[in-house]
Amino acid sequence: MKVLITGAAGMIGRKLTERLAKDGGLNGPAIDSMTLLDVVPPAKPDGFSGKVATVATDLAASGEAAKVIAERPDVIFHLAGVVSGEAELDFDKGYHVNLDGMRALLEAIRATGDGYRPKVVYTSSIAVFGAPFPPTIPDDFHLTPLTSYGTQKAIGEVLLADYTRRGFCYGVGIRLPTIVVRPGKPNKAASGFFSGIIREPLAGVEAVLPVAESVVHTHASPRAAIGFLIHAAGLAPEALGPRINLSMPGVCCTVADQIAALRRIAGERAAARIRREPDPLVVRIVDGWPQRIEARRARELGFKAESSFEEIIRIHIDEDRGGSFVA
Amino acid sequence: MKVLITGAAGMIGRKLTERLAKDGGLNGPAIDSMTLLDVVPPAKPDGFSGKVATVATDLAASGEAAKVIAERPDVIFHLAGVVSGEAELDFDKGYHVNLDGMRALLEAIRATGDGYRPKVVYTSSIAVFGAPFPPTIPDDFHLTPLTSYGTQKAIGEVLLADYTRRGFCYGVGIRLPTIVVRPGKPNKAASGFFSGIIREPLAGVEAVLPVAESVVHTHASPRAAIGFLIHAAGLAPEALGPRINLSMPGVCCTVADQIAALRRIAGERAAARIRREPDPLVVRIVDGWPQRIEARRARELGFKAESSFEEIIRIHIDEDRGGSFVA
Repeated sequence: MKVLITGAAGMIGRKLTERLAKDGGLNGPAIDSMTLLDVVPPAKPDGFSGKVATVATDLAASGEAAKVIAERPDVIFHLAGVVSGEAELDFDKGYHVNLDGMRALLEAIRATGDGYRPKVVYTSSIAVFGAPFPPTIPDDFHLTPLTSYGTQKAIGEVLLADYTRRGFCYGVGIRLPTIVVRPGKPNKAASGFFSGIIREPLAGVEAVLPVAESVVHTHASPRAAIGFLIHAAGLAPEALGPRINLSMPGVCCTVADQIAALRRIAGERAAARIRREPDPLVVRIVDGWPQRIEARRARELGFKAESSFEEIIRIHIDEDRGGSFVA
Repeated sequence: MKVLITGAAGMIGRKLTERLAKDGGLNGPAIDSMTLLDVVPPAKPDGFSGKVATVATDLAASGEAAKVIAERPDVIFHLAGVVSGEAELDFDKGYHVNLDGMRALLEAIRATGDGYRPKVVYTSSIAVFGAPFPPTIPDDFHLTPLTSYGTQKAIGEVLLADYTRRGFCYGVGIRLPTIVVRPGKPNKAASGFFSGIIREPLAGVEAVLPVAESVVHTHASPRAAIGFLIHAAGLAPEALGPRINLSMPGVCCTVADQIAALRRIAGERAAARIRREPDPLVVRIVDGWPQRIEARRARELGFKAESSFEEIIRIHIDEDRGGSFVA
């Protein structure tokens, strides 16, 4: 089996690559080769016996998507994207990467014209939804994004569904909740603080909280996100039907709940490293985001998230901090 | 006031042009000039005292949208589009006209970069929805198109909302129900028979019904559609809020109800001119279409449709047949 991962240098891309390298296969069949694509050269994974090619390119640039599709990957994880804060600040870049990149990929697949029909797992986002919301957002809630990022993701979803319906690929769009705790440095996502307020205190560093503690949000760990991607790649098209875009499950809680979980695990001194400093842009973006996601179809289809925010913090400590933290 | 109409040579475009020419104004202010754009040269309206320019071009072709936007129209009615049946048969043409054309128009507006912010009234379609449906489709039902046309219209909707939110225009997307009775020759829309089974019998000609009489659908007259467009152009952005795409109201009935209304108005001989001949492609497309549209927000915002299918037939006889028909 041949696997292509776009956005392979990103956090989810790296963790997915490592997991696939470690497993050596995907839902059963062995992986013979992986192509890792990003705008910067992705790292090759350790301990993988198959072939690995790394490609640094802009998928939306003319002819680039066709080059990677020429390898005929059986499964494509399309993770490449400009994050929400950046897509809001740089209108052109957001549309270029998130919309034109998606379309270029799908068009390259269609252009083969020889019956090639790969599985395409696409990371969408709950940012396709926009306020006002019902207390719980059902699977059939309309797409009313309030950011350019959410708009681009919504377009990617309906494009993927149409290309799937027309027989060019087998698409699955998974709307990720906010993925926490992200390791490493903050990125430009407006949701970055959800990770920051856990990650920095555990590292003995001060974190900034730009929104109110009453903000309600749905979270899943990077480990759960990788699980979603792998599970999506293994879903039978018949099980999915024409509605191929699915809201993923997660842990729904307030920022106060997140901080309380941190306090229970790491103590009062760690929790005290969070500084409140409201940021109007972030407040405005987050105010338009969904809070509680029902994700009934995804749960019925076997997608699994954590059951508490403490579990999410413990995964971070285990996976990214070697089991320790600064109390 | 300057008005631009794209798709001005189409049925709705022609009727809108005639109506604006007759009114001489739009929701109050006088119309000084109209630019009528289509891929074929649109006809100039009679009895209009303002300036009229006609443009035959492909809006999606490089630089073309910028040329018409250079005139700084205050109100743009973006009606241009490839219809459902054609977009399903010609994948490239559908995406080129319906998606690239919309994006080219919005980009040309944004590219002015000088605070120019026109009103953009966009004709979307209830084809943005896809089966299975609840008994009545609420305003917050998700976008799950089952045709390429519906996909392209859904993308147009979210793009328009994002460009509106970013301050580049004041957009209103109106999801038209099926417009009947269309005058003139059949077009390539899969919904064409909804008009044909009324129009042809009233002209003494045989019509083909390609679906079952039990098919339920929502209809409005061309006169109602023009009313929607004009009402949309006059809506205050504050009344609309961020959810600028609205399902329009209409008359919901079965094909059997349509035929019964024809029989009541034109008699048994006219109704007998309908020949049943199922067409699998049309059956499949129509099966995926919405049936009953709630359109609560649109009604609350003052959009008005007919209250019976007989009323729709009488408008056709009055507006397109000079008051007479073949019994």
